[in-house]
Amino acid sequence: MKAIGFKKSLPITEKESFIEFDIEKPIPMGYDLLVKIVAISVNPVDFKIRQSAAKDIVLDTPKIIGWDAVGIVESLGDKTSRFKVGDEVYYAGDITRNGSNAEYQLIDERIVGHKPKNLSIPEAAAIPLTGLTAYESLFDRIKVDSERDKGKTVLILAGAGGVGSIAIQLAKKIGNLTVIATASRPDSVKWCKDMGADYVVNHYNLKEELEKIGHSQVNYILDFVDLEGYWETIAEIIKPQGHIVSITASSNPLNLNILKAKSVTFSWELMYTRSMYTTDDIERQHEILNQIASLLDDGIIKSTLTTTLKGFTVENLKEAHRMQESGKTIGKTVIQF
Amino acid sequence: MKAIGFKKSLPITEKESFIEFDIEKPIPMGYDLLVKIVAISVNPVDFKIRQSAAKDIVLDTPKIIGWDAVGIVESLGDKTSRFKVGDEVYYAGDITRNGSNAEYQLIDERIVGHKPKNLSIPEAAAIPLTGLTAYESLFDRIKVDSERDKGKTVLILAGAGGVGSIAIQLAKKIGNLTVIATASRPDSVKWCKDMGADYVVNHYNLKEELEKIGHSQVNYILDFVDLEGYWETIAEIIKPQGHIVSITASSNPLNLNILKAKSVTFSWELMYTRSMYTTDDIERQHEILNQIASLLDDGIIKSTLTTTLKGFTVENLKEAHRMQESGKTIGKTVIQF
Repeated sequence: MKAIGFKKSLPITEKESFIEFDIEKPIPMGYDLLVKIVAISVNPVDFKIRQSAAKDIVLDTPKIIGWDAVGIVESLGDKTSRFKVGDEVYYAGDITRNGSNAEYQLIDERIVGHKPKNLSIPEAAAIPLTGLTAYESLFDRIKVDSERDKGKTVLILAGAGGVGSIAIQLAKKIGNLTVIATASRPDSVKWCKDMGADYVVNHYNLKEELEKIGHSQVNYILDFVDLEGYWETIAEIIKPQGHIVSITASSNPLNLNILKAKSVTFSWELMYTRSMYTTDDIERQHEILNQIASLLDDGIIKSTLTTTLKGFTVENLKEAHRMQESGKTIGKTVIQF
Repeated sequence: MKAIGFKKSLPITEKESFIEFDIEKPIPMGYDLLVKIVAISVNPVDFKIRQSAAKDIVLDTPKIIGWDAVGIVESLGDKTSRFKVGDEVYYAGDITRNGSNAEYQLIDERIVGHKPKNLSIPEAAAIPLTGLTAYESLFDRIKVDSERDKGKTVLILAGAGGVGSIAIQLAKKIGNLTVIATASRPDSVKWCKDMGADYVVNHYNLKEELEKIGHSQVNYILDFVDLEGYWETIAEIIKPQGHIVSITASSNPLNLNILKAKSVTFSWELMYTRSMYTTDDIERQHEILNQIASLLDDGIIKSTLTTTLKGFTVENLKEAHRMQESGKTIGKTVIQF
């Protein structure tokens, strides 16, 4: 089968930053499905791994990354029970295994959902990784309860990005929260409002911007952009007993003490945790993906797709990475095979 | 009225580390009760504030600390509705106001509970601050749900201390958790078992000790002793998607990143947050204290009192501080007026 990967971490402009190659089509065992991929999507994790995984070495076999796919079940491992051959599925995947930048992929059925029926293939491929991340942030980390949390506020840092776009919708439509998103360019601001944000504020002078809209402090903060850069501001604008979730990282140690007087809670959200550690509740990702598919099929939330590149080629994958690396993309970019 | 306080931060062995003085009996307004105090208890926060609040200055009026009391309602502010004159009450208090080291104290009724009826005055005075801290840690920060969390494990660092002793009981009896407490001296170990701990492990070689009892990783960790000292160990022994609560502090910034792969949650718990910020849910402390009183009255949990000093004197307050500063006290020390 055809796959695209890299042997060395190179700038995306370099010829060999991605290369096409052939490897054997794998055979599913245990909980694995063999899926014939029809579309993939690109996330920031892709370029971060491409830039770092083979920095000082040259790999013998090219590394296959990519963690977002729509595909068709081709064959089944002996322990599978949730899907049958021919099912249309969508999933993000497991960072410890080969990714979806290939014609076929093995994937544990416990982290796979049924593709939303009413969405096109690219619309569906835009969702899994960002949908899981946003959903887990709100409902597994903060444990937002739409009844108990009525009238509470959430600030979403980087509202127009992939995760931000779906988080705005889930926070508003399912969490019943007042949603404030950050964005600065006119098209990003418009996008956040289209996603359902109650307020969009500029991330420069965040404190003043929040005061202007009458929400100088918020109950929840979702950081999808830069934890370290926002740390001091976060400590000021979080309400007592508030909850912060971050998917980014910090290069330096952080002064946790500044959150103490307010009894603040901080959670990391990493969509890969459940599959990396095969947690007892790994199947929750199967359930979340099916739940998100229902919300999409019922029109309660919508796909965050903005760009579709046609054809599974090195050129398209390079283009998708280049766009992600710019940090300016709105919503999601998909490659349809 | 008589009060005991300090004008300067001095070692407890110094004559003037505490002084007795007279001030006017205050008059309650708004939500305040005027309470005639009959017993108080001492917590680590007391000596920390005594040691730091007047380090480089001499105060004009002595500072009254102490945040744990049993007393009788003597008169009522105009907004009060939860208590009547003559009610026996117990409470921890508000760190921004005068404490309970005095004959009378003003206290917001929204953070006051009815004294447990079946407990002696000293038994009841041992409870409020530690009870609120342990209860909020388990049920407001972690949001332990005895049904959902069945079979989950909690590690309590410093099980024999004031907060640890009540936390063991609440985690076991109300949270339905498997409780592992740390203690090293034979009498502390015995005390933790008496409080209901399923396992007591030595805090030296914590990792190996946990492996020995077949719980190399735990779902929840309550740190009641030294966050910074345990930080690296905590990161290893916490389960994926686990939750850590701390009431201590860290002098240095901490490497939060080491909790990321596991999507771990960290909460600060400060019992004073609700009163300091007059949060919307400030009355929750009234409810928690009443809930704890019911549990004590019904014999589901028991008082953590170990020492009662008779008489509200400078000597007894100094003795209680000296004991707390030793770091070796088991359970709680109370001064009965």
